[in-house]
Amino acid sequence: MGNTFGQLFRVTTWGESHGGGVGVVIDGCPPQVKLTEVDIQPELDRRRPGQSRITTQRQEADRVQILSGTFEGRTLGTPISMLVANTDQRPEAYSEMKDKYRPSHADYTYEAKYGTRAWPGGGRTSARETIGRVAAGAVARKILKEQFGVEVLACVQQVQKIAADINSNKFTRKQVESNIIRCPDKAVADKMIRLVERMRKAGDSVGGVLLGVARGVPAGWGEPVFDRLEADLAKAMISLPASKGFEIGSGFGGTALKGSEHNDAFRMRGGRVRTATNRSGGVQGGISNGETIHFRVAFKPTATILQSQDTVSRSGKNVKLKARGRHDPCVLPRAVPMVEAMTALVLLDHALRHRAQCGK
Amino acid sequence: MGNTFGQLFRVTTWGESHGGGVGVVIDGCPPQVKLTEVDIQPELDRRRPGQSRITTQRQEADRVQILSGTFEGRTLGTPISMLVANTDQRPEAYSEMKDKYRPSHADYTYEAKYGTRAWPGGGRTSARETIGRVAAGAVARKILKEQFGVEVLACVQQVQKIAADINSNKFTRKQVESNIIRCPDKAVADKMIRLVERMRKAGDSVGGVLLGVARGVPAGWGEPVFDRLEADLAKAMISLPASKGFEIGSGFGGTALKGSEHNDAFRMRGGRVRTATNRSGGVQGGISNGETIHFRVAFKPTATILQSQDTVSRSGKNVKLKARGRHDPCVLPRAVPMVEAMTALVLLDHALRHRAQCGK
Amino acid sequence: MGNTFGQLFRVTTWGESHGGGVGVVIDGCPPQVKLTEVDIQPELDRRRPGQSRITTQRQEADRVQILSGTFEGRTLGTPISMLVANTDQRPEAYSEMKDKYRPSHADYTYEAKYGTRAWPGGGRTSARETIGRVAAGAVARKILKEQFGVEVLACVQQVQKIAADINSNKFTRKQVESNIIRCPDKAVADKMIRLVERMRKAGDSVGGVLLGVARGVPAGWGEPVFDRLEADLAKAMISLPASKGFEIGSGFGGTALKGSEHNDAFRMRGGRVRTATNRSGGVQGGISNGETIHFRVAFKPTATILQSQDTVSRSGKNVKLKARGRHDPCVLPRAVPMVEAMTALVLLDHALRHRAQCGK
Amino acid sequence: MGNTFGQLFRVTTWGESHGGGVGVVIDGCPPQVKLTEVDIQPELDRRRPGQSRITTQRQEADRVQILSGTFEGRTLGTPISMLVANTDQRPEAYSEMKDKYRPSHADYTYEAKYGTRAWPGGGRTSARETIGRVAAGAVARKILKEQFGVEVLACVQQVQKIAADINSNKFTRKQVESNIIRCPDKAVADKMIRLVERMRKAGDSVGGVLLGVARGVPAGWGEPVFDRLEADLAKAMISLPASKGFEIGSGFGGTALKGSEHNDAFRMRGGRVRTATNRSGGVQGGISNGETIHFRVAFKPTATILQSQDTVSRSGKNVKLKARGRHDPCVLPRAVPMVEAMTALVLLDHALRHRAQCGK
Repeated sequence: MGNTFGQLFRVTTWGESHGGGVGVVIDGCPPQVKLTEVDIQPELDRRRPGQSRITTQRQEADRVQILSGTFEGRTLGTPISMLVANTDQRPEAYSEMKDKYRPSHADYTYEAKYGTRAWPGGGRTSARETIGRVAAGAVARKILKEQFGVEVLACVQQVQKIAADINSNKFTRKQVESNIIRCPDKAVADKMIRLVERMRKAGDSVGGVLLGVARGVPAGWGEPVFDRLEADLAKAMISLPASKGFEIGSGFGGTALKGSEHNDAFRMRGGRVRTATNRSGGVQGGISNGETIHFRVAFKPTATILQSQDTVSRSGKNVKLKARGRHDPCVLPRAVPMVEAMTALVLLDHALRHRAQCGK
Repeated sequence: MGNTFGQLFRVTTWGESHGGGVGVVIDGCPPQVKLTEVDIQPELDRRRPGQSRITTQRQEADRVQILSGTFEGRTLGTPISMLVANTDQRPEAYSEMKDKYRPSHADYTYEAKYGTRAWPGGGRTSARETIGRVAAGAVARKILKEQFGVEVLACVQQVQKIAADINSNKFTRKQVESNIIRCPDKAVADKMIRLVERMRKAGDSVGGVLLGVARGVPAGWGEPVFDRLEADLAKAMISLPASKGFEIGSGFGGTALKGSEHNDAFRMRGGRVRTATNRSGGVQGGISNGETIHFRVAFKPTATILQSQDTVSRSGKNVKLKARGRHDPCVLPRAVPMVEAMTALVLLDHALRHRAQCGK
Repeated sequence: MGNTFGQLFRVTTWGESHGGGVGVVIDGCPPQVKLTEVDIQPELDRRRPGQSRITTQRQEADRVQILSGTFEGRTLGTPISMLVANTDQRPEAYSEMKDKYRPSHADYTYEAKYGTRAWPGGGRTSARETIGRVAAGAVARKILKEQFGVEVLACVQQVQKIAADINSNKFTRKQVESNIIRCPDKAVADKMIRLVERMRKAGDSVGGVLLGVARGVPAGWGEPVFDRLEADLAKAMISLPASKGFEIGSGFGGTALKGSEHNDAFRMRGGRVRTATNRSGGVQGGISNGETIHFRVAFKPTATILQSQDTVSRSGKNVKLKARGRHDPCVLPRAVPMVEAMTALVLLDHALRHRAQCGK
Repeated sequence: MGNTFGQLFRVTTWGESHGGGVGVVIDGCPPQVKLTEVDIQPELDRRRPGQSRITTQRQEADRVQILSGTFEGRTLGTPISMLVANTDQRPEAYSEMKDKYRPSHADYTYEAKYGTRAWPGGGRTSARETIGRVAAGAVARKILKEQFGVEVLACVQQVQKIAADINSNKFTRKQVESNIIRCPDKAVADKMIRLVERMRKAGDSVGGVLLGVARGVPAGWGEPVFDRLEADLAKAMISLPASKGFEIGSGFGGTALKGSEHNDAFRMRGGRVRTATNRSGGVQGGISNGETIHFRVAFKPTATILQSQDTVSRSGKNVKLKARGRHDPCVLPRAVPMVEAMTALVLLDHALRHRAQCGK
């Protein structure tokens, strides 16, 4: 009962890793927006497995099909249903997981909750679930750009202990896409890639930190007190597989400062109210202040590793489990389009909510 | 339109700092629960200003009144309305804020959003807004304890750079309440208190980190994929005033580990499935796994400081602002009951959602 | 968990007949609307008991107090909390109901559901519950009129078998308020009043039918497929105490016609698309078409009568019950402001939803 | 933004008449329920066009495919996505509707709302939209029967002026399915069928009234004050295409009675509280009382008729329109499974809501 996101731009995802496919229904999309599969597919390509030597070699084309909600290339205002068929299904590759819970995966918790579990490929806990998010996010991102002038972007900022220093206002999508780890600083990216390759060879994995930004958000988006813009961003990010932390603006690091050092002074600039610094991260009291929104998301090292691990079986025995075959040694490059998608979903939803109440 | 929290245990807060009062309506509370003001007031007392020498000296008794939803000392299953009247109103103390936006406060963003603003006391952006949360949280916490055997607890783990090493499974409410900063490690607490006192005298402020835990949560709570238990906790925490970061389990620190170091091995213990370590923080794939849930919340240094700051006026002029009078040099001790309240609201809501779908 | 109405203009009511009071919280109200108690009280006066010789003689002033959400006489965009204290409480008048279920009342069903019940005055099942609706409806109605040019109106069309022929486009509030039964046709109104007086003297009751209309609704409001405008109106009306039927446009009577007789031909008139007839009732396919919205609501005869009735006791015995004292021999005149309030809540909510998605 | 129904058993439908297909996503379905396409298809067959000589001759097999949410023939607790492909698409048959608004259809209102419209086959306003409802309803109905012992049933009670006298407690599904009009009284059914055949030949249409019942609902379902069981039923029914009226229990007819005649006396029978009559329709104060729930729904005569009608064109000219080809002379027989589906959706949702709050 938690597969819908958003209040006004409502996104419902569905689908298991093995089964007919995965997909999404968007309800509340503004009408008359130009939209075809061509607007969606590139984002799915950035998310799909097998896209580079540092992602899992599972091969799926992940072709999206728009089944409803558009007519003659434009949105109707009615629900947009999108479908991606499952093609590369190898249930036999997962036969060992049928009876053993993978450590730090959701096998055990799903079974504890539902009393059942689709073990091939992890079922609903598979990263394939995010296909629907990325597809819906592509729609939201397009509308944000065309109708609100808002740009949403993410990049890899840190892999394990290798970190880049990135200016939230300046890095570009082109820079992000210029290398397979998706870090806009090429020198640091190279180091990150080498680390991930070492991990892949060792059958191990690493995590890291993504930076998400939104530029051009006008002052006024966000719905205190519970649906603060940053609270909805936090939920969106922590709802992504493998994410363990979220911070906006100065975040955890800001707790080392005194108030007199931390406050963002207001200054008039270019005829409008600006802040001299942006430790607030573009939000104050749950509402955007017109500065660039920037936040960081921590992703743990991928739980699937190709080493023998202690675990228990469904029948309650202590056993060993060793995964075989394909795995992602680092989820970060593929998480970039997911973070962008979720950011776009949050922002467009809030744009519509603001328009509803305040008429602008 | 963001003043309601929860799906099944639904909490709606209302109220400005200056006005008739603040309050909350709970819809969906289970019937036949013993409940009177005596169950609520102690939590409000932990939240209220003026409770110690390191909190603001604003004096309000914050007496709660239950207006509906109970009969002969038990809940009816109908909405519970609770009211706390505003008493210590001094609009004149805020006269300077009428025309100037306080840095890193929400004065400017509220005005940008709504085109208007209740400037005395910050209106809805006042920390008084959290009274309704704490009152509702007290009800949720009571039900969690009595009907589900779940204990919710929080404490101050870090103030600026002074940090305590706290075992999530062991610290007690008594330890937390044994000192005015609410850190269970007495030696560290003393250092924290001295730091906050220095800040108060300097008219400055500090932030820090709270630790939140929930013990006894059964495996199975949480609603993938968007309403993951940790995602709803993240939203709940980041919706609190002054919070800037959330991490669950290993969080940001966990990104320094490799998968082989980070995974929580499963082991049978006491006849049930347990994890050898708890880097997952009690949740896997959005669902509780039966281990202690533990997370950290970063709070920035209080924005209100008694020093002159650069800001702008409503008419768009660069000006100076110096707050006078009463302020909280550190929000952390008063945030402890807020974190507990929000944790309880998330957990009880998920307990009811789980019961609805899975019948247990 | 069903005490909130609306998606964007969200109304949560609370309160039992006997207890601290009854009230409502509105979340999502547009900011900067002029609003004080003076805008609300007249509607409550139309709803309150004791207003005429044909309503219950229970005497309550029902004074409304706005506790939050306004500042200097205008709405802030934050939650508006309104409170009406309970004053005329006579629990002893209900002592017999403590142990006996009133026929066709909700005493038994509340107890079956919640295992408990606030018997004095019917608790939450009291018509006092509608105070919150009427107060919120007054706000919605004001905004509809001022910002959207929409007029909402209701009247008594039928009492038992005495019916008036009323033109949905023409009757006025002044006509409705010109007599105590609230039927705009004075001659019919007199007959209705005499009937109700006879019932009152006999300790019996009658029901009837209300007509609700909304004039000036632009084409385009309504959210197919489930949140059709007429579906939300139906829910709103059937959620009122004692209502048993709803029909829009031609309703049940329209089933006697053939399609060729029933269809509303489109015609250009005054430069815009109009219908020659209005059997559709102002909605087609769930969306307003620019014509007057008109619908009818059936209210059963009041369940409380001053005659001896068969019933059962809490301990499961067949017994007799005879209510004493004060009762409403006909709910219709007091239901008029309730129908108007719920109509306004539905329409404003849909106005905001339409603005959110379609930007106008 | 109104394409989702239900709070806990949440159903989202999507799809236009012409396009990839129509479908539905169910979120919140209890796990471990046996479910395959075989449980769904029979209900779709009862809904599909071309099933008899008195329905439209449009021929579509309407084969349902379950794409997610089940594994090895049982539900997983994750979203169930169901798809029915569109096959019999003849956009050219609708070419005249491209530029003319069909009277009493939603062509004009959709265009007024969204500024665009999928004219072939009526797009989203097509009755094909109800496929998703019927598919989801089949799941709900199965769970109601297996887990709660509740039987949901509907039948045609009246076609134009031909009415049957039907006992809500006794008629059977077998009787309903014994004739093509779906009226359990065979003699009356024959008359109805002859009337509909005359209408079909005349290119005209008729409407009528459906009776819906639910047997075995325990006392206690329903969520006052807004989500009363009968209010949600009213919304569900009025959200169906062509429905114009809803009444529960005595409904409009009950307004002719006095309170002393209308009240349902309580009596002990078989060791439990029963009512001597059932004018309440199985609900009191919004909550089921354990008696059979019975209600009536009015459906207008089908708007599509094969006669020339006055209308206007998109360019604002008065014109004539004459539909060609296939039409339903009476929607009632195909509406029977729709009414059952929506009834089941309402009841199961309330069953889960009741379980959530009251634990049973």
